Amino acid sequence: MKLEQRKDLLGLRELSKEEIESIIDTAVPMKDIIKRDIKKVPTLRGKALITVFYENSTRTRTSFEIAGKYLSADTVNLGVSSSSVQKGESLRDTIKTLEVMGFDLMVMRHAMSGTPHYVSKNTNIRIINAGDGANEHPTQALLDMYTIKEKKGTLEGLKVAIIGDILHSRVARSNIYGLSKFGCEIRVVAPSTLMPKEVEKLGVKPYYSLDEALEGVDVVNILRLQKERQQQALFPTLDEYASLYIINEDKLSRAKEDVLVLHPGPMNRGIEISSRIADSTQALINEQVTNGVAVRMALLFLMMGGSRNEIAN
Amino acid sequence: MKLEQRKDLLGLRELSKEEIESIIDTAVPMKDIIKRDIKKVPTLRGKALITVFYENSTRTRTSFEIAGKYLSADTVNLGVSSSSVQKGESLRDTIKTLEVMGFDLMVMRHAMSGTPHYVSKNTNIRIINAGDGANEHPTQALLDMYTIKEKKGTLEGLKVAIIGDILHSRVARSNIYGLSKFGCEIRVVAPSTLMPKEVEKLGVKPYYSLDEALEGVDVVNILRLQKERQQQALFPTLDEYASLYIINEDKLSRAKEDVLVLHPGPMNRGIEISSRIADSTQALINEQVTNGVAVRMALLFLMMGGSRNEIAN
Amino acid sequence: MKLEQRKDLLGLRELSKEEIESIIDTAVPMKDIIKRDIKKVPTLRGKALITVFYENSTRTRTSFEIAGKYLSADTVNLGVSSSSVQKGESLRDTIKTLEVMGFDLMVMRHAMSGTPHYVSKNTNIRIINAGDGANEHPTQALLDMYTIKEKKGTLEGLKVAIIGDILHSRVARSNIYGLSKFGCEIRVVAPSTLMPKEVEKLGVKPYYSLDEALEGVDVVNILRLQKERQQQALFPTLDEYASLYIINEDKLSRAKEDVLVLHPGPMNRGIEISSRIADSTQALINEQVTNGVAVRMALLFLMMGGSRNEIAN
Repeated sequence: MKLEQRKDLLGLRELSKEEIESIIDTAVPMKDIIKRDIKKVPTLRGKALITVFYENSTRTRTSFEIAGKYLSADTVNLGVSSSSVQKGESLRDTIKTLEVMGFDLMVMRHAMSGTPHYVSKNTNIRIINAGDGANEHPTQALLDMYTIKEKKGTLEGLKVAIIGDILHSRVARSNIYGLSKFGCEIRVVAPSTLMPKEVEKLGVKPYYSLDEALEGVDVVNILRLQKERQQQALFPTLDEYASLYIINEDKLSRAKEDVLVLHPGPMNRGIEISSRIADSTQALINEQVTNGVAVRMALLFLMMGGSRNEIAN
Repeated sequence: MKLEQRKDLLGLRELSKEEIESIIDTAVPMKDIIKRDIKKVPTLRGKALITVFYENSTRTRTSFEIAGKYLSADTVNLGVSSSSVQKGESLRDTIKTLEVMGFDLMVMRHAMSGTPHYVSKNTNIRIINAGDGANEHPTQALLDMYTIKEKKGTLEGLKVAIIGDILHSRVARSNIYGLSKFGCEIRVVAPSTLMPKEVEKLGVKPYYSLDEALEGVDVVNILRLQKERQQQALFPTLDEYASLYIINEDKLSRAKEDVLVLHPGPMNRGIEISSRIADSTQALINEQVTNGVAVRMALLFLMMGGSRNEIAN
Repeated sequence: MKLEQRKDLLGLRELSKEEIESIIDTAVPMKDIIKRDIKKVPTLRGKALITVFYENSTRTRTSFEIAGKYLSADTVNLGVSSSSVQKGESLRDTIKTLEVMGFDLMVMRHAMSGTPHYVSKNTNIRIINAGDGANEHPTQALLDMYTIKEKKGTLEGLKVAIIGDILHSRVARSNIYGLSKFGCEIRVVAPSTLMPKEVEKLGVKPYYSLDEALEGVDVVNILRLQKERQQQALFPTLDEYASLYIINEDKLSRAKEDVLVLHPGPMNRGIEISSRIADSTQALINEQVTNGVAVRMALLFLMMGGSRNEIAN
């Protein structure tokens, strides 16, 4: 299946390797627009995009908004606090309302896993999942993969360590689904309390020792620790987490010399990543943000570019 | 008077039948833009629109915003929480400030009846009332009338039942003013505690029995019950209201076979409308939303299209 | 130095007289766009602007937003409540993130003095300070100066009284820096509790008597009293302040006959300014708002108009 024919982008689990490659390839010229090396084009003039975020977010919402604007789409933002949720309307009715206002595509974030999948079945509007609970955050994984491919030239067969709160992380899950399709060796590293019980079923190898996990890896993807959650935890506390799992120069010396360091942001400096690493040339955090806009532009272009009748549904 | 010559749209009470017809007629081609059957046109390029909502709203604000964008107007949103209201500025001064920033038109919602009328007298900016207290919500009634005319071919002489909290409903009031001009027989149905005392002065007939009111009607317009208010009420409670006034298949069998069911949304399924009816082909809730954007585009076009000097004021 | 070559506009202190004049001169034709005397032009098409407000604001944020739109720039708003601040991200990281999304310029307001200066050193994105604590609010002073020059024909050698809470006022500070460069005689008037201790070092003369200060002045610039602060004050209380420092017809009779009255808004009528004066022809409050949009358009044009490589940094 080609991405252009899909109605929605709900997760990387269901995408083929070819679809992922087509998104990444399409993102390359988009990056030139962001960097102003080529001029903005009215590719999506006359198309309308709405972002519906039931969880707060700076970077993801803004990234989608400016991605839409760079392509000349009309963009409208709907924050949860001003929405009819407060009036007790069903989610299905809210989304249907936005569909029949004529929006071509909706970008949706929700705290509950599976929400965009439920909405997808009940509406005709195209949906991009911008994060659903602990399930998937496909555009984050796509931008991670774009960033890796840009630097390494390929995604095939790389050794990737994903470090942090694997249990609650939609970023981890989407990266695992995506990278698996390229034959990557994926190692997940977490304290036992933050490791999903049946993680091996996802085809990844769990590590409880950071040193072992980092041995010879090409890429380190560091998850954000949700401090709010950890402040109430028995184990690990914030201090314990930082002492055991922070990525600093010493720890990173076990990885390959040209290891890439990724982090989805916002970073907790001094907790999951040292400032020295965060500001080093190995760290691609800023590159990831730029690539995030590029990948989202690519998705909007591929999914909204055609006429409405080309959707498979 | 032609609508193009009016400074403001404050309510349907003061509009002529011809003005209402001209809005509805202008909305027809607008709907083709929403449905992407014809291309977006830069009709209002160089015009600027601001929405000022002192009450929360998803659908009305978003509907006006996307209506403006479909016509290429610049649109700015001002939410109450971020406005100078908090700083104690007078409403008149706030609105004047927006006027002299160069906005051509303001869409305003306020919890107090008469607010847009007050503002209108004290500023030169064009105003569309997007709901003022329990007074009027003219664009809602216009989209209701557009929807009825689209299906029935005419508005003349129809029998329309409006059901729910008539006392507090600006939707009811605007529908009554509008439909009256077309010789409709308007029946209002409510428990006695939610029926305005002197409702007959508006030229409508009050009903306390739903069965009697629905007998032979062409259109049923169901109001949203404000659950917050009813949860504190002595009579009717939510349960009582639902058992007496919910519109379901059984109740609707008394109406004409081709009866149209309208609801301004957001719906309380199972309270004022059964899910079966809400999802039936008789219910035009989604059509109303689309027509709402079309009607608002028509208004923006008629009121902002000309040069500033054509305003009567 | 020419303004076009500056990376940022952080305050008027560091601008030359020539730079201030070039901004004011550039604002003149911009005002014709606001008044629709000339057509909107796509001068900044393909440029992207983000407003980042860590303090609430109606007029300043909206003014920048519509200024950007009048020049066809893409504009995105970031409110503090929806930002990653809540997630504990460092300010530097937040701003860097916005920079690498490709925004050309950021308009920033922050409650802490010096914030934009700190951010400026750590990022490459152009910054316009929209108010930092009690330090500067340069675009407010620029619009004040534009307004004065428009009416008086010149800024040179005028007598200007600035009245109110000088101690906490960034508007006062920016006006002092700006007007000083034109040889104005600047008098600051405040109760002793609201007068900065070393105000004379700024080259202005402190007055504690309003009558003396107003004697023969060309311009009166009235600051907004922050009622929240004064309600907790020992001296002056709101009543005391109003009785001693309100500008009314009586007080104003000591100024020159053609005195101009400015106020940055929002006004507390009856506290720092009488309604009669606020609505008189001497008061330029509305003119200031229009000129504020013009001055901001001029700044956006001068700072974003060129290619990225022309920045001095």
